[in-house]
Amino acid sequence: MNQLTNYTFDELEIGATATFERTLEEKDLILFAAVSGDINPLHLDPEFARTTQFKERIAHGAWSGSLISAALANVMPGPGTVYLGQSLQFQRPVKLGDTLRVELEVKDKQERRKQVTFITKVVNQQGKTVVSGEALVMAPSEKMTLDARTLPTITIG
Amino acid sequence: MNQLTNYTFDELEIGATATFERTLEEKDLILFAAVSGDINPLHLDPEFARTTQFKERIAHGAWSGSLISAALANVMPGPGTVYLGQSLQFQRPVKLGDTLRVELEVKDKQERRKQVTFITKVVNQQGKTVVSGEALVMAPSEKMTLDARTLPTITIG
Repeated sequence: MNQLTNYTFDELEIGATATFERTLEEKDLILFAAVSGDINPLHLDPEFARTTQFKERIAHGAWSGSLISAALANVMPGPGTVYLGQSLQFQRPVKLGDTLRVELEVKDKQERRKQVTFITKVVNQQGKTVVSGEALVMAPSEKMTLDARTLPTITIG
Repeated sequence: MNQLTNYTFDELEIGATATFERTLEEKDLILFAAVSGDINPLHLDPEFARTTQFKERIAHGAWSGSLISAALANVMPGPGTVYLGQSLQFQRPVKLGDTLRVELEVKDKQERRKQVTFITKVVNQQGKTVVSGEALVMAPSEKMTLDARTLPTITIG
């Protein structure tokens, strides 16, 4: 992705959809623990995880949720979006190597405040829902295209 | 924090509270962008941020939300908690150097499924609410104390 182009409030139609994909890598478990402070060993310690109902390390639920934020910010509506609210129901564990797809769908628009409600679903590579919920955003009024910034290299250990 | 001790379902009383603190540093903006894929320039590009209503870079809303996950996983109920759901209303921007305090309060308990509802609020150093909402978790049945793992060093750039 080199450029990000947004959808303005007026361009967003009820029923419009967009997607965003991401695969869970081991580094994501460490980075998410570091940036959130959530050092639950279920996400970090294979031996501890083996003793739980999940049998292996799983993603932080909030990581799967953060992909919805990425989909809203990068794809639809994209740049200029202000994130107002989110509900999340964590339905299934996410394991290393799982590829998640965020599916956004415009559910409703509130004209006066330029607010848009999205149905937000995260599904795994088997098509099973891992997170369901809804987002509320203020959609941008002005059309814009931005160059996506390249992030600096991040080294672990 | 060297050890994490949990609260079991039976130990959690309605009205019980716990807190977790964290200060937003520049590295958090980069790490959260990397781990979530949310490369909104509002969080990464000071010049772009200056053109917005916020005037400077702000935290990803989902970062502030992820601190709630950390509070639930590390502090109350702590290890053994299974995160089932979260609602988030993003009420105010979070700026570099802001210190956020997650405030958890047990709102209700559902005996049969060992589920606990928490009121989850994130306030800044001025006591203003930046995120409000509720969490639903399955609380642990067994008491446990775990050694907190030290995360590997993370280097940016």
